[in-house]
Amino acid sequence: MKISARNQFHGKIVGIEKGATTAHVRIDIGGTIVTASITNNSVEELKLAVGGSAYAVVKASDVMVAVD
Amino acid sequence: MKISARNQFHGKIVGIEKGATTAHVRIDIGGTIVTASITNNSVEELKLAVGGSAYAVVKASDVMVAVD
Amino acid sequence: MKISARNQFHGKIVGIEKGATTAHVRIDIGGTIVTASITNNSVEELKLAVGGSAYAVVKASDVMVAVD
Amino acid sequence: MKISARNQFHGKIVGIEKGATTAHVRIDIGGTIVTASITNNSVEELKLAVGGSAYAVVKASDVMVAVD
Amino acid sequence: MKISARNQFHGKIVGIEKGATTAHVRIDIGGTIVTASITNNSVEELKLAVGGSAYAVVKASDVMVAVD
Amino acid sequence: MKISARNQFHGKIVGIEKGATTAHVRIDIGGTIVTASITNNSVEELKLAVGGSAYAVVKASDVMVAVD
Repeated sequence: MKISARNQFHGKIVGIEKGATTAHVRIDIGGTIVTASITNNSVEELKLAVGGSAYAVVKASDVMVAVD
Repeated sequence: MKISARNQFHGKIVGIEKGATTAHVRIDIGGTIVTASITNNSVEELKLAVGGSAYAVVKASDVMVAVD
Repeated sequence: MKISARNQFHGKIVGIEKGATTAHVRIDIGGTIVTASITNNSVEELKLAVGGSAYAVVKASDVMVAVD
Repeated sequence: MKISARNQFHGKIVGIEKGATTAHVRIDIGGTIVTASITNNSVEELKLAVGGSAYAVVKASDVMVAVD
Repeated sequence: MKISARNQFHGKIVGIEKGATTAHVRIDIGGTIVTASITNNSVEELKLAVGGSAYAVVKASDVMVAVD
Repeated sequence: MKISARNQFHGKIVGIEKGATTAHVRIDIGGTIVTASITNNSVEELKLAVGGSAYAVVKASDVMVAVD
C-alpha cells in the first residue's frame, strides 16, 4: 500500500511503552528519535517490537514549523 | 517558548511553495526531508526563507507507524 | 506497507478538485462519500484519478463521535 | 449544531473500551467499523453506550488516501 | 448534534479569507482570535459570514501545551 | 522558539489528570477552559503544575467551525 502522507521515514524501533489503551512507540530515524502515540491494538497487529524495522508516517498538515 | 510536542527536529529550509492560502515548507533534517503544510501567514510572520534554520514540530498523536 | 491507522476503508475515487497546493479527493466507500484534503503532489505521485480504486485512511485519534 | 467537518457518518456503536483517560469507541457505518479514540469524559457526557446511535466525524485534513 | 470534542468555544466571525480550496476563518472568542483552516465548501454550506455567530471546535488530542 | 501554529493562547493551568501514558491538562484562557491531551512525559518535562502559567497551542488545520 502506498499512502499520500508526505512524510514517511524509515528507522528502527527503540522503545515501546504501553498504557491502558494507548502506546508510545519510539523510532530511531538516522539518529533522530521520533515518538508516535498509537493504539495498543496497532502495536499488536503490526507485531511491533524493539529492534524491529519500521516507518514513522506523518501527514504534511500535521507538521508545524518553528524558529529560534 | 517550550512546547509539549514530542517531536522537534532541527534542520534547514530547502523549499517553500506558496499556494493561495496554504504553503508547503520542506526542511532538511540531517538528510531527511520533512514537508510541512502551514498557512502563508505563518511563513511571513516567522520570516521563513530557503536556506534558513528551522524546526519541524509534530505532536506524537499525529505520528503513525508502518511496517513493510 | 501496513500502517497503524485503525481506519482504512476501500472504495472508488469519485472526485478530485485541485487547488493551488491542496486537493480535495472524494472516495465512495460502499455508498458513503469520504472527503480527503491532501497535497496536489500526493495526487500526482499516487496517480489518483476519478474511477480509480483507493483507500481512505484515518488515525483513530482524529475521529470524533457525535450524537443527535 | 452543524459542524464544518466534511465527514459525518451515521451508525451504531458496537464497542467501547475505556482506558485510564482515553477510550476507544467503535461505530458500525453500514458494515464498515470506524474506530475513534476520544476521552473517557466525552463517553460519559455524550452517554455513549453499545447499541446506541452515533456519528463518526472526521475533518477532511485528517483523511489520507492510499492505493495498492 | 452534540460532539465529543472537548473544546467548543462560542464567538463571532471576524474574518474569512478564501483560497483556491481552503479558507481561513477567524473567530473572536471573548477577545481571543481563533483561526480555523477549513474547506471553502464548508464555508458555503454553513453559510459562514463575517459578523455571524459561530463556534471554534478542537479535539483535545490536537491541543499542545507550551511554557515560556 | 516561535512556532507556526496560528493559535497560541496564554492562560493558567487549572487541572492535570494523568492516565497510564496520556494526561489531560486544562488551561483557563480568560474564563474559557481549554483541554489538551498530551503525554505524561510532556507534563513532566515542561514541569506543568496546577496554578502555573501556560499556553494552549493549536494548528489552524485542527480547528473546525460550527454553527447552531
